[in-house]
Amino acid sequence: MLLLFVFNGHSFSSKMVKLKIPDHQVAGHQAKTGIIGPLIDDSGKFYKPLQDDERGSNELAFYTSLYSDPRIPSNILKFFPSFHGTEVVDASDGSGLHPHIVLEDIVSNYTNPSVADIKIGSRTWHPQSSEDYIRKCLQKDRETSTIKLGFRISGLRSMGPTNQLWQPHRKVLMDLSAEDAMLILRKFVSSDGNVDEPDCVFASRVFVHVLEELLELKKWFEVQTIFHFCSCSILVVYDKEEIEAKKSARAVVKLIDFAHVVDAKGAIDHNFLGGLCSLIKFVKDILAGLSDVETSNPKP
Amino acid sequence: MLLLFVFNGHSFSSKMVKLKIPDHQVAGHQAKTGIIGPLIDDSGKFYKPLQDDERGSNELAFYTSLYSDPRIPSNILKFFPSFHGTEVVDASDGSGLHPHIVLEDIVSNYTNPSVADIKIGSRTWHPQSSEDYIRKCLQKDRETSTIKLGFRISGLRSMGPTNQLWQPHRKVLMDLSAEDAMLILRKFVSSDGNVDEPDCVFASRVFVHVLEELLELKKWFEVQTIFHFCSCSILVVYDKEEIEAKKSARAVVKLIDFAHVVDAKGAIDHNFLGGLCSLIKFVKDILAGLSDVETSNPKP
Repeated sequence: MLLLFVFNGHSFSSKMVKLKIPDHQVAGHQAKTGIIGPLIDDSGKFYKPLQDDERGSNELAFYTSLYSDPRIPSNILKFFPSFHGTEVVDASDGSGLHPHIVLEDIVSNYTNPSVADIKIGSRTWHPQSSEDYIRKCLQKDRETSTIKLGFRISGLRSMGPTNQLWQPHRKVLMDLSAEDAMLILRKFVSSDGNVDEPDCVFASRVFVHVLEELLELKKWFEVQTIFHFCSCSILVVYDKEEIEAKKSARAVVKLIDFAHVVDAKGAIDHNFLGGLCSLIKFVKDILAGLSDVETSNPKP
Repeated sequence: MLLLFVFNGHSFSSKMVKLKIPDHQVAGHQAKTGIIGPLIDDSGKFYKPLQDDERGSNELAFYTSLYSDPRIPSNILKFFPSFHGTEVVDASDGSGLHPHIVLEDIVSNYTNPSVADIKIGSRTWHPQSSEDYIRKCLQKDRETSTIKLGFRISGLRSMGPTNQLWQPHRKVLMDLSAEDAMLILRKFVSSDGNVDEPDCVFASRVFVHVLEELLELKKWFEVQTIFHFCSCSILVVYDKEEIEAKKSARAVVKLIDFAHVVDAKGAIDHNFLGGLCSLIKFVKDILAGLSDVETSNPKP
């Protein structure tokens, strides 16, 4: 059955789909907490509620034009979740029908995904934002590791091969020093994040490939003057069991959250690039710290 | 004659030196305007008044340890002005004896230097600064091109081979778009900055070498976790007559202003690096825009 639904001046088609709350979300508005949050279906799609202010229209406009934008190189498009338009579905908070942006559910192929959501940049606002929004963002940028490290870990879960879940509380992730962030990223690629001395047994298999992906992104960010990605995250997903079982298994690196993407107006996104380079340094340092026993790959 | 002078709890030796106000300063506190500003002597030294708050002690501490710091690679030391200790000399504003940091006068070897002072980074303050200072800096960062471009041109003069001086007013340099900044940087390497269509005749000779220097700096900034250089500038100096006359003549690239350098605490200086990469993109684009007639060097 198809219905027509009008929201914020736009009309959306509505379809009856059976949806559920995602298990593996680590950051952002979470439907679990009773507020409106994303939903997933059984076919690998992720339904992100369209925000009813310019954040929603911004993100929708971004996805709508992204895949037909000739300025985006094809090797860069793989970093974005695929986009399946919009659909009006029942909101997770029980408030009734609400338009959602329909995206690829990045973790749908994993049984027990380990996920890190890392918000990139030492500034999460752009100059065109409202004074109130800038003030709020600036406060959070100063309270978290954003200004110090050029990124903050918004959320993270590490699922051990024998199902030890380690998911540090958001408060723990708030104000990380470089040393704290290093330890958390090392735990993320260890068999059990709950121990003080992480074994980093997955570091080489996961981070060698993650590093390649980040360096490919960096190369693009050094030249692209199309977008400034404010408050955008890098999502890293992998499955420990899969990595152990299959030689071809690799981590996935995606860019997510485009509600605050603005026109670059002729300059590169120096804010995102700086933060990305900072994250790259952490990943390189972790790889460089591995003993030869731990890695079968050459040190970078 | 040597005197001992106590300032801000520290004692300094005082020497009678004949000093004058520099002709070619483009940014910073300028002695010309009746306030305390830097002085130069005839032997190629630059006397920077020691600020009587932590900015002064910070900058002095930075220079004092810099040249004996084993963490700084030798190829990077060349980017810093050489340091000759402190001296108490008559302040430029007639207020009497005042301690000065004695540095290399970078422009002393040039008859008619063209100079650009480019403050790097999209944030000129660090989280340890006072609230009042952060507020002031943030306002200036938003009013200038700092946040948009990741740098601002604090001052610039271009001296033509037949003595046409072009020195845009600070107000002109305040809020540059990417297009404005591009035009100003192109004028900086043209025979006459006063015309609307800059000829870029010095672009190749000046910017090919500047680019090499910036890329060398970038390589270091991608890995160094020693300092965060807040509110630090890159100074580019060259002499048009010299460039025309001598095949070996090259532009000089220096880092200056270290009153707001802080401990990196384990993270790279993503703020400086991002701004540096933005400037590099401008220089590369100018070089890439040159016709084959204008450049005898291969395009980068």
